[in-house]
Amino acid sequence: MADTVKKQNKPSTNNKSNKLKQSFNKGKTQNSAKKSQKKYYQSDKKNSRTAANKNKGKPKNKRQTVEKRPNVPIKISFLGGLNEVGKNMTLYECQNEMILVDCGLEFPDPEMLGVDIVIPDFSYAVANKDKIKGIFITHGHEDHIGGLVYLLKEMNIPVYSTRLTIGLIEGKLREHDLLNQAVLNVVNPGDKVNLGCFEVEFIHVNHSIPDAVALAIKSPAGVIVQTGDFKIDTTPIDGGVIDMARLAQLGNEGVLCLLSDSTNAGKPGFTESEKKVGDTFETLFAKADGKRLIVATFASNIHRVQQIINAAESYGRKVALSGRSLENVVSIASELGYINIPEGVLVGIDSINRFPAEKMVVVTTGSQGEPMSALYRMAFSEHRKVDIGPNDYVIISAQPIPGNEKMVGKVVDELLKQGAEVVYERMYEVHVSGHACQEELKIMMSLTKPKYFIPVHGEQKHLRKHASLGISMGIEPKNIVIADNGKSIVLTKEKITFGEDIPSGMVFVDGSGVGDVGSVVLRDRTKLAEDGIVIIASSIERETGTVVSGPEVITRGFVYVRESEQLIDETRRLCENVLSDCMYESVTDYAAIKNRLRDAVSRHIYSKTKRSPMVLPIIMEV
Amino acid sequence: MADTVKKQNKPSTNNKSNKLKQSFNKGKTQNSAKKSQKKYYQSDKKNSRTAANKNKGKPKNKRQTVEKRPNVPIKISFLGGLNEVGKNMTLYECQNEMILVDCGLEFPDPEMLGVDIVIPDFSYAVANKDKIKGIFITHGHEDHIGGLVYLLKEMNIPVYSTRLTIGLIEGKLREHDLLNQAVLNVVNPGDKVNLGCFEVEFIHVNHSIPDAVALAIKSPAGVIVQTGDFKIDTTPIDGGVIDMARLAQLGNEGVLCLLSDSTNAGKPGFTESEKKVGDTFETLFAKADGKRLIVATFASNIHRVQQIINAAESYGRKVALSGRSLENVVSIASELGYINIPEGVLVGIDSINRFPAEKMVVVTTGSQGEPMSALYRMAFSEHRKVDIGPNDYVIISAQPIPGNEKMVGKVVDELLKQGAEVVYERMYEVHVSGHACQEELKIMMSLTKPKYFIPVHGEQKHLRKHASLGISMGIEPKNIVIADNGKSIVLTKEKITFGEDIPSGMVFVDGSGVGDVGSVVLRDRTKLAEDGIVIIASSIERETGTVVSGPEVITRGFVYVRESEQLIDETRRLCENVLSDCMYESVTDYAAIKNRLRDAVSRHIYSKTKRSPMVLPIIMEV
Repeated sequence: MADTVKKQNKPSTNNKSNKLKQSFNKGKTQNSAKKSQKKYYQSDKKNSRTAANKNKGKPKNKRQTVEKRPNVPIKISFLGGLNEVGKNMTLYECQNEMILVDCGLEFPDPEMLGVDIVIPDFSYAVANKDKIKGIFITHGHEDHIGGLVYLLKEMNIPVYSTRLTIGLIEGKLREHDLLNQAVLNVVNPGDKVNLGCFEVEFIHVNHSIPDAVALAIKSPAGVIVQTGDFKIDTTPIDGGVIDMARLAQLGNEGVLCLLSDSTNAGKPGFTESEKKVGDTFETLFAKADGKRLIVATFASNIHRVQQIINAAESYGRKVALSGRSLENVVSIASELGYINIPEGVLVGIDSINRFPAEKMVVVTTGSQGEPMSALYRMAFSEHRKVDIGPNDYVIISAQPIPGNEKMVGKVVDELLKQGAEVVYERMYEVHVSGHACQEELKIMMSLTKPKYFIPVHGEQKHLRKHASLGISMGIEPKNIVIADNGKSIVLTKEKITFGEDIPSGMVFVDGSGVGDVGSVVLRDRTKLAEDGIVIIASSIERETGTVVSGPEVITRGFVYVRESEQLIDETRRLCENVLSDCMYESVTDYAAIKNRLRDAVSRHIYSKTKRSPMVLPIIMEV
Repeated sequence: MADTVKKQNKPSTNNKSNKLKQSFNKGKTQNSAKKSQKKYYQSDKKNSRTAANKNKGKPKNKRQTVEKRPNVPIKISFLGGLNEVGKNMTLYECQNEMILVDCGLEFPDPEMLGVDIVIPDFSYAVANKDKIKGIFITHGHEDHIGGLVYLLKEMNIPVYSTRLTIGLIEGKLREHDLLNQAVLNVVNPGDKVNLGCFEVEFIHVNHSIPDAVALAIKSPAGVIVQTGDFKIDTTPIDGGVIDMARLAQLGNEGVLCLLSDSTNAGKPGFTESEKKVGDTFETLFAKADGKRLIVATFASNIHRVQQIINAAESYGRKVALSGRSLENVVSIASELGYINIPEGVLVGIDSINRFPAEKMVVVTTGSQGEPMSALYRMAFSEHRKVDIGPNDYVIISAQPIPGNEKMVGKVVDELLKQGAEVVYERMYEVHVSGHACQEELKIMMSLTKPKYFIPVHGEQKHLRKHASLGISMGIEPKNIVIADNGKSIVLTKEKITFGEDIPSGMVFVDGSGVGDVGSVVLRDRTKLAEDGIVIIASSIERETGTVVSGPEVITRGFVYVRESEQLIDETRRLCENVLSDCMYESVTDYAAIKNRLRDAVSRHIYSKTKRSPMVLPIIMEV
């Protein structure tokens, strides 16, 4: 992958040995990190581990003051992730020093027309950038890393996370030409990073992407555990069970506050192990004997892909990948050792027809029915390489995210119409969640035994349910706070209270523009989308005020013009009348003339069509 | 309700006694019905029953030839309702005579920008209108009656349905000023209507609206049973259990073909009885003691509303209705005797504050999270009369229809944020479906014992699942056909085959326009919605080709102009250059100049913003 990096303003000596430099800036301030402008990226797992181990032996430097002092407050400010699923971002402040946790994106609601992604309004962080020592990332999902490039454009703070997460972040930075100046630090679960008065420890958790961690944030105010996204998987595919021993140890030593993932707080019981899906694959691969297999899943679910590869190997099938994000993630995961692809199993999508169909598995994106995803294109016969037919057995190994149900249904229907067999939704156990259900959430509380509890990552209903679980676990109701984006919470050993509100909100990214699409632009887009636009253009001679050209009536997205000539003609005549009235009444103020045109045309069109297109009069002064 | 009818061109003597005229035109052709231009609307239940009974005794007229003849084919053409949930419409043809069943609408997908509703393309029916004897409506849901007014504008055929359904249709006709010319015939379950060579019998079924019927369509080719939407409810609120005896009798006499509701074909087991929801209401009303109750449900679910009223009465609460469609349906149902509201229970929404909150139940629309529905307005503090607070207990007595999950979630979250307690989705049994699950579908097949089976009303996955249930019931696979909109199927006693395809599709209704929004307009709306519009306006002198005004750059929905002055300036200068180049090169063809402007501006804007707004050059010739 490194070959493709644009090495702007950088000598070509930035080779591998250079890249393998020590990954920690223990106690270094942001300024010193910035000055060096070096990329502390650690790409070798073994070396990094050694480095981390070495660090463990080092004496702690003098700024490191994690012993607890009475009544030192810590402030937690929420920039995103509350009352929503997405754009997670949290700011910790203690003794005038700050650290950030995560910087995610959110996918736009349908009414945010033309918006590509939504990122947190992090202006509060930018206003305090001199205090911010670094950002810690819990895992590599978009709702935790997707806003990072935009943040780093505003402040080049060092980034700390696990190897795979850093690998995925690297890809994003490369796309934005930011890779060279970013300061990326690879850590391993168990590592501790000291920044200012904070010591942040990384704790291994299970999730639907490898290398996810919880954070134990130690400060003079006490220890705060932020779980990130997690589940308890006692038979995970790789990486071991969530480190409950360390969480229990922290609990015994005393946890001031727990911030825990609320996504599945509404669901009773336990989330099934990822292994379960592997068992299902074994069954379904047997059922699909003689047919080509097509399996759709999330690109980032490396363990899922691993299990598909395992099943394919055991049934003597080749595997091809379809979908840019999938190819990208598998390539990074494979390079970093997070996925094990036996020699000769993986073949290019271009060469699938060289193998018998019944000996192929195509792994594809599009499990959410996204238009233009690989599976969507297959279903609608627009895929370059894969034609769906009665000899295909399609497994959608995912559950529709709320809002995507109809799109997934459409894709399933098209696949069925092409004659394929399709396994979707709850027909078999082809998907398990990556988030803890109620029993796991309760285990997390019982391990960490927090004094205070703040449910995070979820909508109001999830947060409330999680809060009530906290009460059922014996946490005092007054010590549980349901916060919101833009709220800050101040904790001491004595009490938990709301601090001053901070700026927060949504920033829309559209194309290369960040924040230049706001409510005015969206309002116009909504109007244009509903009923289109009617433009009234005319040229008026400056001196005499006579109309020398037009009025012309031009419409887009309003009616099919060829079938509506009469309406357009009427509208033009109406405009002629308005203009001649204006002239007769000696109205020369163009704004006034435009208003009269707009009103007359809007009224006329509504009376004839019951539609309200945007009416835009243009007067050219000659 | 009758007071509000606009009685255009009609003497005021069209009073109740006139309205109570016999409801059948047995054997009458469309033409004779048309000539009379009378409204055969029967509004009194008792009288209608008597009328129906009377008819039963009458000798059948000579056109009524329902005895079976060998090898007479019947053709069933699908104008809507297959591979979709909505706009159900079926056409039957036998011996050159036709009847229609249902004419529904569908709500537009999000990508159908600005479209209000979608109706079937019924041009095939219009082309054959002289053959069509009438239309039969199975029940009053929008996906079965919503397209009817548009059909009746094209051909004034007589309509046959049950009392409540006709009542709901009347309301629609009134809105479209069609009530006076429409020929509406009220029938009762058990009644038979003879039209041409068809005899259509109405059979009572259970569904989530009262007065739903299945149809037994008898023709010289044999008997076809079309179930409409149905479930088997052994403890229904009103109207009795589905008439299984009659279905069994038909089965014993011989059913050529069954067309059955596939909506829930993917769901195993039985659909719960509507009564279940009443039990849940009793429990929840007790839990809500001391709080105001707000219950959201579908406006047309009269039985649900009845159960809310029953529970309210037993807990000594008053009931207020919020939402226009709800008030409308309850008013019609109450007038026709389909809902029993005890004296003094119902109060106006304007007077709810005159009663203690804990003695109120507000029944409301908005169970699907529809923006601007009553519940939505309550949640977002935009309701005129209802302010949500911690003293409110909200029950959403419905399940989100696929595609609405996110909107419902938003409303729930807002209600929770206001402090209300909210019962939603599967928390309690606050909703049951109106459609048959697998066991009920199998009972329908075992009662009717059809030779041929065509699953209808559903997406491909539902149709396929239903077909496989048919096979499991012993129907021969070659006798089961999965059809599609635009397909026609020809049945004889010997075989079932596809006939010629017929025109079919979607017709968009936008405002008062029917069909004038098509792919061109939608493409433009999509482009406008994505990135807005950039207009380049200039005036050019005809003779010299010199630019005498402009170019002006006007944008809408593209960028926030005040913050993008530089981009707009650059674009204007670019246009000046293009125009002066054109002049220099003596390009005088306006189309060519416009193309060059469009290309240059599009490229420039994309390079600067990665956006592709619609670019519209306007040249005014002076």
